[in-house]
Amino acid sequence: MRLALLQNDSVPLDTGWQFATLAEVARHLSGTADLLVTPELFMTGYRIDAADIRRLAEPADGPFARKVARLAQETHVAILYGFPERDGDRLYNSVQVFDALGRQLALYRKLHLPSDEERAVFTAGDRLVTFDLGGFKVAPLICYDVEFPESVRACALSGADLVIAPTALRRHWARIAEMMIPVRALENGVFLAYANQAGSEADWDYAGLSCIIAPDGKELVRASDQPAVILAELDRAEIGNARAKLAYLRDARFSLTGPA
Amino acid sequence: MRLALLQNDSVPLDTGWQFATLAEVARHLSGTADLLVTPELFMTGYRIDAADIRRLAEPADGPFARKVARLAQETHVAILYGFPERDGDRLYNSVQVFDALGRQLALYRKLHLPSDEERAVFTAGDRLVTFDLGGFKVAPLICYDVEFPESVRACALSGADLVIAPTALRRHWARIAEMMIPVRALENGVFLAYANQAGSEADWDYAGLSCIIAPDGKELVRASDQPAVILAELDRAEIGNARAKLAYLRDARFSLTGPA
Repeated sequence: MRLALLQNDSVPLDTGWQFATLAEVARHLSGTADLLVTPELFMTGYRIDAADIRRLAEPADGPFARKVARLAQETHVAILYGFPERDGDRLYNSVQVFDALGRQLALYRKLHLPSDEERAVFTAGDRLVTFDLGGFKVAPLICYDVEFPESVRACALSGADLVIAPTALRRHWARIAEMMIPVRALENGVFLAYANQAGSEADWDYAGLSCIIAPDGKELVRASDQPAVILAELDRAEIGNARAKLAYLRDARFSLTGPA
Repeated sequence: MRLALLQNDSVPLDTGWQFATLAEVARHLSGTADLLVTPELFMTGYRIDAADIRRLAEPADGPFARKVARLAQETHVAILYGFPERDGDRLYNSVQVFDALGRQLALYRKLHLPSDEERAVFTAGDRLVTFDLGGFKVAPLICYDVEFPESVRACALSGADLVIAPTALRRHWARIAEMMIPVRALENGVFLAYANQAGSEADWDYAGLSCIIAPDGKELVRASDQPAVILAELDRAEIGNARAKLAYLRDARFSLTGPA
């Protein structure tokens, strides 16, 4: 699978600008990438007020979603993107993925809400999901989710080959991107893609440092702190190679160490 | 607590040499350190044949243990060290700790045996343990154990402030020492001490890189690949500070993500 991550500098609240950025990148990647991933809450930008989230949130089949689905179909690039989802009275911090025919493959709602700001507006999700794409079983997570080893472990135990985590990570937490993300891949023998923002929004500076990590914990590609599109080709055989050397999933003794 | 790690270059099979090394370091640290930690299987060296392990293994109150207990008493430095333990017909890859009065505080048997060599000679342990020392609740793990996030999580959930992992890590796995160990501390908000060998034994080169990591994932002290004694003073207040910024233990959703 040829996987691309968009590390953009968002223009908060301007969903037209955000879509135009996505469209430009997807068209450029047509024929080169199989899947394009954006940061968390890409549709609106991350660092916006609760009132704006409530105003801009859309159902998973809303106008922005339909434009993304058509873009995927037009470019033959599957797209996984973050957006504030409205479902009745509830809002979720969600990602969804459309395949290269524009069909929805999965919708995932962030399980772990890290801040009072997020908890004030979003309902936490209640399940992990996986989808199949290009011969890979893929599990989406969002930002804080991936910082819990239990999340990625659960994805790996459910058969995921590739975990994809859109995020909005601030500059002073760079060690999450630089150390924790490679370790999450290594300790499970899975590919892990981490798509962050660059630049700043309001009072937040983002770390950039988006990356695609191999199942042995080594970096396939790593962005700087500047806006970028990064791309790597993933070879499923690397999963077996990594797990043959470090058989964590085989050797774990969950009955003695797992949370009760 | 003032914690010291001995990163030695073992002389395999020479338990007299090994004890003399420990004694020299403990005497040097008397009045300076509260606890001294050795690498895994320090008593005999790690990379020795099964026949030698069977020949040299001792009960937890054997001759080597009694010498270590007296050394702790003499120097007023608690000592946590690794040894091949004989218990009836079974052998364990164990650590035990004697306090500054020479009393045994805990005995821990490695839960996760990583190799055919270890599995051929040792029985795996069946429980985690903790002990109290200098106002800290301390949990010992051994080498491969600490590479499983579930192990350190279980220690943290049982109230451990400090996880101590004697190890025998080869040079080509340096990323375990450099990345995974800091992440284990960070993701739990605990102090983590990792005591490795330097030098080589038979066909194995060791990574060194012993370290003491703060609950925010930052290195308090890090050895090179050369023999060394490293020391840090641990302040329990740093645990609360780290967890106030990253409340992983509070925010985890084990019912959704924990291994079944």
